[in-house]
Order: sequence, then structure tokens, then C-alpha cells
Amino acid sequence: MCGYRGDNHIPLAACVEFIHTATLLHDDVVDDSSLRRGIESANAVWGNQASVLVGDFLFSRSFQIMVECGSLQVLEILSNASAVIAEGEVQQLANTNDLSISKSDCLAVITAKTAQLFAAACQIGAVVADQPRPISQALEHFGLNFGIGFQLIDDLIDYSASDKTIGKKVGDDFREGKVTLPVLLTYQKGSKDEQEFWKRTIEHGVIQEGDLEFAIKTMKKQNIFAEVKLLAQNYISTACDQLTCFPESKTRKALEDAANFSVARLY
Amino acid sequence: MCGYRGDNHIPLAACVEFIHTATLLHDDVVDDSSLRRGIESANAVWGNQASVLVGDFLFSRSFQIMVECGSLQVLEILSNASAVIAEGEVQQLANTNDLSISKSDCLAVITAKTAQLFAAACQIGAVVADQPRPISQALEHFGLNFGIGFQLIDDLIDYSASDKTIGKKVGDDFREGKVTLPVLLTYQKGSKDEQEFWKRTIEHGVIQEGDLEFAIKTMKKQNIFAEVKLLAQNYISTACDQLTCFPESKTRKALEDAANFSVARLY
Repeated sequence: MCGYRGDNHIPLAACVEFIHTATLLHDDVVDDSSLRRGIESANAVWGNQASVLVGDFLFSRSFQIMVECGSLQVLEILSNASAVIAEGEVQQLANTNDLSISKSDCLAVITAKTAQLFAAACQIGAVVADQPRPISQALEHFGLNFGIGFQLIDDLIDYSASDKTIGKKVGDDFREGKVTLPVLLTYQKGSKDEQEFWKRTIEHGVIQEGDLEFAIKTMKKQNIFAEVKLLAQNYISTACDQLTCFPESKTRKALEDAANFSVARLY
Repeated sequence: MCGYRGDNHIPLAACVEFIHTATLLHDDVVDDSSLRRGIESANAVWGNQASVLVGDFLFSRSFQIMVECGSLQVLEILSNASAVIAEGEVQQLANTNDLSISKSDCLAVITAKTAQLFAAACQIGAVVADQPRPISQALEHFGLNFGIGFQLIDDLIDYSASDKTIGKKVGDDFREGKVTLPVLLTYQKGSKDEQEFWKRTIEHGVIQEGDLEFAIKTMKKQNIFAEVKLLAQNYISTACDQLTCFPESKTRKALEDAANFSVARLY
């Protein structure tokens, strides 16, 4: 594998996918999630043990493949991304049940746990193609902004979608006390009574029947869905702006389409 | 860090320790262990979530440090070792509750999950010191045999030690249905009644009061402690034989002492 440098983008794409899958396997254990992409999660089928260990295997395997590809620069980019992802996940865990965090704390978690891998994936394409630094930087920034926009929507549809379209359980974040941006903004803008509601549910984890519906209703009342979607759209626009250094092409269009789709999607 | 190649052994020793710690953090989650090194395990204090994520961080961080050290050969050795460790852990999980495995299946798990990291740790010392291939191979084989001997004793003291000396709970492996070598040998040599006992406890996980004591008594009756210890001693001898390519020195003595201690220890 990787003997011919021109083919390195294929095994390296697999590395990104392996790292991503490893984090999903571990995430579902950490969040005790039973659904992933509309079907039972790996931990629900095979248990937490297999999910933790197979995640570790995929992670190790991805570094093996990178070594076979022989680029220390790629190894640097993906080992940095992996460390930042893990830090982001730990930070997210530390922020759980804590409504005193700021909007920028929220965005820092999103950037670390999601956008860094988007950025790395886009950047290494340029690196293995021996492109100059401005090109690899443009792709890195495209990926970073794309990743933030993507995750903002991901956190939104945990409240705005139906179980069937989302492929995982609506309200999982709510039940886990995760302080995502929709929750934080709704809390910050809430009346005193509403703030008490968020403290009871998110901070103290005391959740009663009808609470998720009330949370969603309150978000709608304060136009949070539109606000977060607009913010995500701004990140996606910034992402697509980075691509203007490339001539118009099918490939550039595909990247733009992927970024735009991430805001338009319902799941 | 690692700017001066002569110092690379120090950060690389940290990499080995980080990988080792990451596997311990994940192991304690997988095994639901509450004690580690005589005190509460990380998962017992901070929960499974933090243990999984911090393990992921340490693992990523170790690859970051390796990249900083700049040796693709070291990255190859440690990424291979990491992948084999994860495979070994998955194989161990697959062998749980299965008394039909062979002695060599047992040794294969030990070699993968424990000895590979010993081997890698010893080998990279030679690699970063620019030693010729026979030297790095001798150290690799020293580490591999040391690791097998170490783990054989580790599996033994889960039955032969007291909680206080072992630093973790005696009988954890028994309660988890792990088919380690002491169990497998005792089962294979057992009478029909004894084999039924092992099937009930290890294969079906039906454990009653007094079962651990009976298991230990049966092992003692069949001289299993002495048999496994002798096997471990043979691996340790093979390990020390690899060191004869070095002149006698304080360093060589320290390696031999560490290997011999691993068989003599009570914990």
C-alpha cells in the first residue's frame, strides 16, 4: 500500500474515516447511545467492551496506514487533530450540566471535537498532492469552517428533527445534560421561570414527561432554530469563500455542495 | 522537544508509558474494575466517560510526540504494537467464557496484549541509538519474552495473591469469566466433576459463594501455580539469554533484574 505516492490520498482518506469511526464508537459508549445512523449502535449490539476495543484498533490501524504512506507531515496533521478531538470531547464532558459556559466555550468544543478532523482531512489532500502552503491553508480553513457549520446544525437537529429523519434519538443531548448552543442561547434569553426550567433539566438532570416538548417550544418561541441556522450558514459561506483560489470545476462544486448540504439537511 | 536526537529516548519512553496508561484506562472500563495499583481505578473515581476519553487523548498525544521525534521507524514500531495490542484485547474478549480454546490461543493473547509493547519499548531504545539490526532484534526478543513471562505471572497472581499485595481484587478474572492459562490448565486436567465446575463458573458465569476458594484449591491440588511459574521462568530465561550480546554492565544487570523480579513478585 502507498508504494506509489500519487495514490496516497485513498489510504489516507481511509485513515480519516477510521479515526472518525473510532470516535463514534467511543462516543456512543460515552453517551450510552442506542441508535446511530438509524440503526442500533455498535455498543447496543456488541456491548461497550467491543466498542471501546474496536475503536482503539481502528485508531491504531489508521496510524499504521499513515506510516506506510510515509509522510511525517500527514502524521503530524492527523496526530494533532486526534489529540485536539480528544481534548474537545473531554472539554464537552466537563461542560455537561453547566449553563454558566459562554457561547465561545460552546464554539471551542465544536471546533475541537468536530471541525479539526474536517480541517485535517481537507488539508492532507493538498499535502499529498504537493500543493503550495496557501492552497493547503485554504483547504484547511474550508474544512474548519465547514466542520463548525456542520456541527452547529447537528446540535440543532437534536431538537428540531424527528427520530426517523435524524437516525438517532431526538432529545439525546437534552437527556444527557449537554450544553449545546441551542440550549445555551435559549437559556441566556429566557425569563426567570424559563431559566429555572433549564437549570432543573440540564443542570440537575431532573427530567419529567413533557420537558423535551417544552424545551423545543421555548426554543421555537425565541427563534433559536433560525438563529443557529444563520450562524451555521455564515460558517458555511466562509468555508466556501476559501475555495475561490481554485478555478470553478466539478470538484470545487462538489465541496461547495457538501458544505451547503450540511446546513440544508434535516438529519 | 526531540530537537536533539540523542535525547529522543526520553520522550519516546513517555510515549510507551502513555500508550500503556491509555490501555489500562480502557481495560478498567472494559473489565469494570474498581481497583488499580491498590487504589480506586480512574473509572471508579471519574466514571467510564472520562476514562475512555482521556485514554484516547493519551494515545493521540503519544503519536504527536513520536512525530516530533521524527523517526518513521519508531512510528512504525509503535503503531504496529498498538494495533496488535488492540487485536489482542479483542481476541481476549472473544475468548471470554470459552474453555475450548487451546494453550497456544492463550499464549497468543498474552503475546499480543502485553508482550508486544514490552518488545516495542525495548526495540526503540536500540533504534533511536542507531544500533545495528542484530542488537535491536535481541532487545525486541528480550522484551517479547519478558512480556510473556510477566503476563503469565500477572494472570497467576489473580488467583494466588491477597487483595492487599496484588493491588487489585483477587478473583477479578474468575468473576469476569476470563480464560487465562491457570484456569485453562486446571480445567483441562480436571475430573469430570471439576470440569462441570469450571463450565458453570467460567462458561456460564454462575458463581456462588465459595467458588473462588474452590477454584484456587483445585489449582493448588493440580500444582498449577508451580507449572505456570515454571513456564514463566522459561520465558524470562529466554529473555535474559538475548542480552548476552551485550557486555556485562549495570544496565544489562538492571534489565535482567527487572525480568527476574517479574517472576519473583507477589503482586
